Amino acid sequence: MNDTFLKACRGEETAYTPVWLMRQAGRYLPEYQAVRSGVDFLTLCKTPELAAQVTKQPVDILGVDAAILFSDILIPVEAMGMHLEFSDKKGPILNDPVRNKSGVDRLIIPDTEDSMPFVLEAIKILGADLRVPLIGFSGAPFTLATYMVEGGSTKNFVNTKRMMFQNPGLFHLFMDKITLTVIAYLSSQVHAGAQAVQLFDSWAGVLAPEDYKEFALPYVKRAVSELRKEGVPIIYFVNDCAGVLKEVKKSGADVIGVDWRIDLHDAIKKIGKKFVVQGNLDPCALFLPKEKIEDRVKDVLWKGEFAKGHIFNLGHGILPETPVENAVAMVEAVHRFSEK
Amino acid sequence: MNDTFLKACRGEETAYTPVWLMRQAGRYLPEYQAVRSGVDFLTLCKTPELAAQVTKQPVDILGVDAAILFSDILIPVEAMGMHLEFSDKKGPILNDPVRNKSGVDRLIIPDTEDSMPFVLEAIKILGADLRVPLIGFSGAPFTLATYMVEGGSTKNFVNTKRMMFQNPGLFHLFMDKITLTVIAYLSSQVHAGAQAVQLFDSWAGVLAPEDYKEFALPYVKRAVSELRKEGVPIIYFVNDCAGVLKEVKKSGADVIGVDWRIDLHDAIKKIGKKFVVQGNLDPCALFLPKEKIEDRVKDVLWKGEFAKGHIFNLGHGILPETPVENAVAMVEAVHRFSEK
Repeated sequence: MNDTFLKACRGEETAYTPVWLMRQAGRYLPEYQAVRSGVDFLTLCKTPELAAQVTKQPVDILGVDAAILFSDILIPVEAMGMHLEFSDKKGPILNDPVRNKSGVDRLIIPDTEDSMPFVLEAIKILGADLRVPLIGFSGAPFTLATYMVEGGSTKNFVNTKRMMFQNPGLFHLFMDKITLTVIAYLSSQVHAGAQAVQLFDSWAGVLAPEDYKEFALPYVKRAVSELRKEGVPIIYFVNDCAGVLKEVKKSGADVIGVDWRIDLHDAIKKIGKKFVVQGNLDPCALFLPKEKIEDRVKDVLWKGEFAKGHIFNLGHGILPETPVENAVAMVEAVHRFSEK
Repeated sequence: MNDTFLKACRGEETAYTPVWLMRQAGRYLPEYQAVRSGVDFLTLCKTPELAAQVTKQPVDILGVDAAILFSDILIPVEAMGMHLEFSDKKGPILNDPVRNKSGVDRLIIPDTEDSMPFVLEAIKILGADLRVPLIGFSGAPFTLATYMVEGGSTKNFVNTKRMMFQNPGLFHLFMDKITLTVIAYLSSQVHAGAQAVQLFDSWAGVLAPEDYKEFALPYVKRAVSELRKEGVPIIYFVNDCAGVLKEVKKSGADVIGVDWRIDLHDAIKKIGKKFVVQGNLDPCALFLPKEKIEDRVKDVLWKGEFAKGHIFNLGHGILPETPVENAVAMVEAVHRFSEK
């Protein structure tokens, strides 16, 4: 077992800087497309053998130091009682979005074994034959809330913020339920064999800092504090984090994920030296010629040295348009240039 | 003439903090909807009497201290030779997006009087009877480039960054042409009567800081430096600016616009005390109850005191869903709480 990633999460010395890519199992890989062509997206998420198969693909193809479970962040939302479907054009659609008290009351806090057994089975299958650690994950509470209130993707988060601002008491109650769900969901993933967990706060960056402090951060802190007892490293990634990074470090997570819109050295100056950082190459930098990708890798590696530890990653999910050979070149460059 | 806004732009003492709202002439106003119902969007932009009429509306209805010309940031792009239309669902559509050398070569640097006379006529009409200063505006060069390369709105700016990364020489040539267009366009607006100009860099915040420095900032600097000779205040607004604010101040603009994702006091610490700041209430904060809007206004005003000067604004355009009475309450609160 290659445990470089786990050592880096704990801030221990490693022989080189470990690397994985957000969304590394996915559409940019022909091998993924081949599996996906036979089955719709949700069925792929819910079929443990197939989910395990696509989870493993990037480990072999890219040579990354960690695998992340192939799933969708809305799986626990569906388990809370909402109807989920995926449209090719619009992305996820949740019927009857949560907008009022009866919407919140209707939600259940699901038992993972009962309502999402396929997730745990996929993890167990992977436990048997993965040569790198497996990362379990969940959307962070605020990010899940945005989908549940908006009913899908959105531009301005008007409904979410309207509910938050006009009925903060109800919004907090809503966030409580989501947070309990996230805690139970991630605990189950660890019990099934996940060796680290990541909370994805894809949309918390749309909040003004004072609102992030009131409506998002407390729930992440609570989840991190509860998950602490599971004994695995906890990674917290906020997309578009530059304006709230001073707050993000208060989450208590071991590893802080950083997106590409901020210089990694500037980010580390804000976070301080007590945290391991993860990031932060612009996913579009994989459209550069290979020599230039190497230059960018060196630059990010050099900046990462200022933190307690560094896990190399993109600053957001890898894009479907990415040439696979460039992703391979990036991983290889990270290993080569960071070797001690 | 109420010149509070112009004084604030120059960093002079004012009796109260001036306020205007990005997109203040627009869809949230029934009076705008009434004008718009008789005519399509582009025709409204190109009919000087109507454009002047909707430009004036928020001055009367909200009591703001500046007017901004009603237009669309893609008007000069159309004048450069691209075909522009607006779809109700998809927003702006530019046919034959610019992706290669022949696309760049085809573009012309338009003469404003010849190809956008309606903009200048609208400014002249307004000059006669506006009781507050008129702000002229243009998209900043990088933001215009994104629309021209993507052919409309986009999520990940893949085509823009691909062109930038794979053919930087061509991209710089492209940015040159856009910059010359922006300079000529804004100069003409000032000659027609605009008393300040704002460059909107709505999408520069999607660049990693090193790319912002190479591909966006130099062109803004050049535009600002050329426009300096027109003698009017220059405002530069980058949406999602937190990660690049240290660079934004190098633009040379008099006033730096700040979006809502960063605390205004933190932003001022980065910008330094030599600049006037403009911003930065979350547009969604106008969904709050009025007392809470007042609290937020007080907070932003207090933070604005740390800069050389402060112009109150939202951190992005006012949203169509905004209750007009809340926008009125905000403007009134800014005036009341900032009175010296």
